Amino acid sequence: MKPEMTRSGLRGDTTDHFHCPQGTHDRNDYFEEYYEDRLGTLHEERGKGVKIVGTFCLFVPDEIIFAAGADRIILCGGRSDTITLAEQSLPRNICPLIKSSFGAVLDACCGGTVSCPHVGLVDVVVAEATCDGKKKMYELLAARVPTYVLDLPQRPDSPDAVAYYLSEIRKFRTFMEDLTGSRIRNEDLEREIASANETRKILHRLFALRKRDPPPVRGSAILRVMQKQFFLSPDQFRTGLRILCDNLEKTLPPTRTGPRIMISGCPMAAGNTKVADLIEQRGAVITVEESCTGTRAFWDLVDENKDPWTALAERYLHIPCACMTPNDERVSRIVDLAKQYRVDGVVYYTLQFCHGYNIERLRVQKALKEEKIPMLAIESDYGDSDTGQIGVRIDAFLEMLS
Amino acid sequence: MKPEMTRSGLRGDTTDHFHCPQGTHDRNDYFEEYYEDRLGTLHEERGKGVKIVGTFCLFVPDEIIFAAGADRIILCGGRSDTITLAEQSLPRNICPLIKSSFGAVLDACCGGTVSCPHVGLVDVVVAEATCDGKKKMYELLAARVPTYVLDLPQRPDSPDAVAYYLSEIRKFRTFMEDLTGSRIRNEDLEREIASANETRKILHRLFALRKRDPPPVRGSAILRVMQKQFFLSPDQFRTGLRILCDNLEKTLPPTRTGPRIMISGCPMAAGNTKVADLIEQRGAVITVEESCTGTRAFWDLVDENKDPWTALAERYLHIPCACMTPNDERVSRIVDLAKQYRVDGVVYYTLQFCHGYNIERLRVQKALKEEKIPMLAIESDYGDSDTGQIGVRIDAFLEMLS
Repeated sequence: MKPEMTRSGLRGDTTDHFHCPQGTHDRNDYFEEYYEDRLGTLHEERGKGVKIVGTFCLFVPDEIIFAAGADRIILCGGRSDTITLAEQSLPRNICPLIKSSFGAVLDACCGGTVSCPHVGLVDVVVAEATCDGKKKMYELLAARVPTYVLDLPQRPDSPDAVAYYLSEIRKFRTFMEDLTGSRIRNEDLEREIASANETRKILHRLFALRKRDPPPVRGSAILRVMQKQFFLSPDQFRTGLRILCDNLEKTLPPTRTGPRIMISGCPMAAGNTKVADLIEQRGAVITVEESCTGTRAFWDLVDENKDPWTALAERYLHIPCACMTPNDERVSRIVDLAKQYRVDGVVYYTLQFCHGYNIERLRVQKALKEEKIPMLAIESDYGDSDTGQIGVRIDAFLEMLS
Repeated sequence: MKPEMTRSGLRGDTTDHFHCPQGTHDRNDYFEEYYEDRLGTLHEERGKGVKIVGTFCLFVPDEIIFAAGADRIILCGGRSDTITLAEQSLPRNICPLIKSSFGAVLDACCGGTVSCPHVGLVDVVVAEATCDGKKKMYELLAARVPTYVLDLPQRPDSPDAVAYYLSEIRKFRTFMEDLTGSRIRNEDLEREIASANETRKILHRLFALRKRDPPPVRGSAILRVMQKQFFLSPDQFRTGLRILCDNLEKTLPPTRTGPRIMISGCPMAAGNTKVADLIEQRGAVITVEESCTGTRAFWDLVDENKDPWTALAERYLHIPCACMTPNDERVSRIVDLAKQYRVDGVVYYTLQFCHGYNIERLRVQKALKEEKIPMLAIESDYGDSDTGQIGVRIDAFLEMLS
C-alpha cells in the first residue's frame, strides 16, 4: 500500500496552505512558520501507518525513501544539551555532532525531555558507513532503534566502486520495499529524482543571488534555511525557497559591507550556528558554505537521462566528503567556489576531533595559498567556552583581509 | 624478470645462516640478532633492483607482494621521536601511530636522522582505506612517496563486499605486476599463500604454549616478536619462531605468577611496548593479545582449496578490525580468547584519538561483563607523561583481580 503517490510533492507544489515565510526581507529564521505544520504532518502520517525514516548523512539517497512512500527527517544533532547524556556511554574525545545525535536518541528512549522531538517520530534509522565515529555510533544505536547501514566504497575513482555502491543501493531498495510494503517502480524513482533535482535547482538559484556584491542576505540566515531542508518536506522546502528567492530578487537588499567569507568544512547541524553567527557579528558576510549544510547538499544533480538507479549511485558516490579518498574534487571545488562567490577569505571549520576534515585542511590550505586566498582554521565543539577566543581570532582574520 | 622465486622462502627454509636467537629462554628481545642480517638483505635486494614495498596495515595481502617477486616491510611507527616533526603538518589530536609513521617519512625525505632507517628503503607505499586518520594521512604521504591505496568495503557481511574487495585485489595485482615487471601466475600466489599459512600455523603453536599455567614466556617478549614479523623476511621469522617454540617446549619455564591478562585493542607498533611492559612490571602476565600485533595478524588461514584470489579476498576482508561494521566477530572472538587463554582480566588498549577502537570498547565491555570478566580501559599515546598514572590504575586493577 502506497499512502501517497507524491510524498515529496513535485506534482502537488502549492503554496496556499503555507504561511508566507517572509515577514521582512532581512530575517534570521526564514522558515520557522513551517515547523509546527511539518510536525503535525509527521504525526498524522504516523497515525496513518506511513513509515518515517531517520537519516544522518547526505550519502543516503532520499529519493529511494520517498519513492517507497515513506517520509524522512535527518537527525544530525547540533545542540549541546544532549551531549552530557551521550558522554555517559561514548568517549568524550569524539565529534560533538555524533555525541549530540546519540544523546538525543538515548534521551528519547528514556522518555526524556532534552532531546529534539524528532527522534521519537522515526520507525527506523538508515545510516551509512562514512566516518569512524558515526560507523561505530550506529552499532550502539542499533541496540535502541532499528538501524540499517548502507555501505560505501571509499575510493570513488576505483573501477568497481560505482557497481558496489549500486549493489548497496539495490539492497536498500529491497529494505525500503519490505518496510513500507510498496514496490518501487522505476517511474516512482524517476519522479523522486526529478523532485530532488527541482529542489537542487532552486537552491542553485538562491545561492546565485549571493554572488551579488553586496549579497542580499546574510549567510547565517541561509545556514538556518539549509538546516531546515533536513526536517521540512521537499514540498514545503521548495515553496519557502521560491518565495525567498522571489523576495530577494525583487527587494532592494540592505547594504552588506565587510569582507566576503566562505565557510568550508564540517556540517553545522540545526542548533549549531556558533561560528557562522560570530563571523557575521564581527562584520563579515558569508557568501557561500562548502559543507553538507551548504553546497555539498545540492550542487550536483542526478542525471535524468540514465537508468535511475545507476544515475543515483553515480551522483551520490561523488559527494566530495572527507571520508572519500583521494578527495581532489573537494579541493578544486573549494577553489572554484571561492572564485565564483568572490570571497576575500575562507574560514575552514572543523568539528572537534573530526579527523577527516581536520587532516584534509592541509590540502585545502595549500590549494588556497596557491590562489592567494587567505584561510583561517577553526576547530570547535558545541560549547560556549571558546566563543571569546574564536571571536578574537576572527577579528584578527577580518582585519588582515580588509 | 622475477629476481627470486621464493622470496618468502617456503621451499628454502633453512636455519644455518641465522644465529640462534635463544641465548636464554627468558629474554625480552628474541629475534634481535636477525635485524642487521635483514637490513643487509634489503640493501642488497635494492641493489639488484628488487622492489621493496612499505605497508601500514594487515589488510594489504603480503602474498601478492611476494608473489610478484617484491619484498615488503611494514612501516607503522611506534616511536615518539618523529611525532614533533609530524605535528608541524598533522593535527595534534590524531592517533600517535599515524603521527609517528608520517613523521618518519617526513624525516627520511629531508635526510633526517630521527626516523626509522626502513622508510628510505621502500620504492612504494601500499596503503589501504581503513580509518579516517590513515586514509587522509596517505594523501599527504602521496606527495612524498609513491603511494597506492587499496579500497576496502566496510560491511564485510554485505552480499557484494567480497566481490568488490576481490576487484580491488585484482587491481592491486596489476599494480604489482607493473611495478616488478613479473606476471603473477596462480601457482606463485598459491606458493605464497602456503608460505603465509605456514607462518600462521607456527604462530598458533607459539600462542598455544601461552595457554599453559604458568605460561613459559612473558607477553611483553612475545609482543616484541610479533612486532618483528613486520620487518623480518617470512623465512627469518619462521626460523626464529620454530627455535623459540622448540626451546619453550623443551625447557622448564620460570614460574610466572600473577593474574593472567589479555590485551585487546589497537596495535602496538615496534617501539611502543609501554602498556605491555607496565602490566608485567606490576606483576601480571600477559597470555594473549587481541590486536594487529597479536591474534588478528595470524588467527585465520587462507583456504588453500579455493581459487587463490577469492580465498585471499575472503580471508583478508574478515579481519575483525574496528574499521568494519558491524564487528560482531571481534566481540565474540575476544570472549572466546579470554576463555581459551584463561585470563583473569582484559586490558582494553586504545591509541589516543582512535575513534574506532575507542567506541567499540563499549560493546566489548558489555560482552565481557556478561561473562564476568573484568576489564580496564587504557587510552594512551607514545609519551611518558601518563606512565605513573597508568601504573597506578594497573595496580588497582590487578589488586581487584587477585
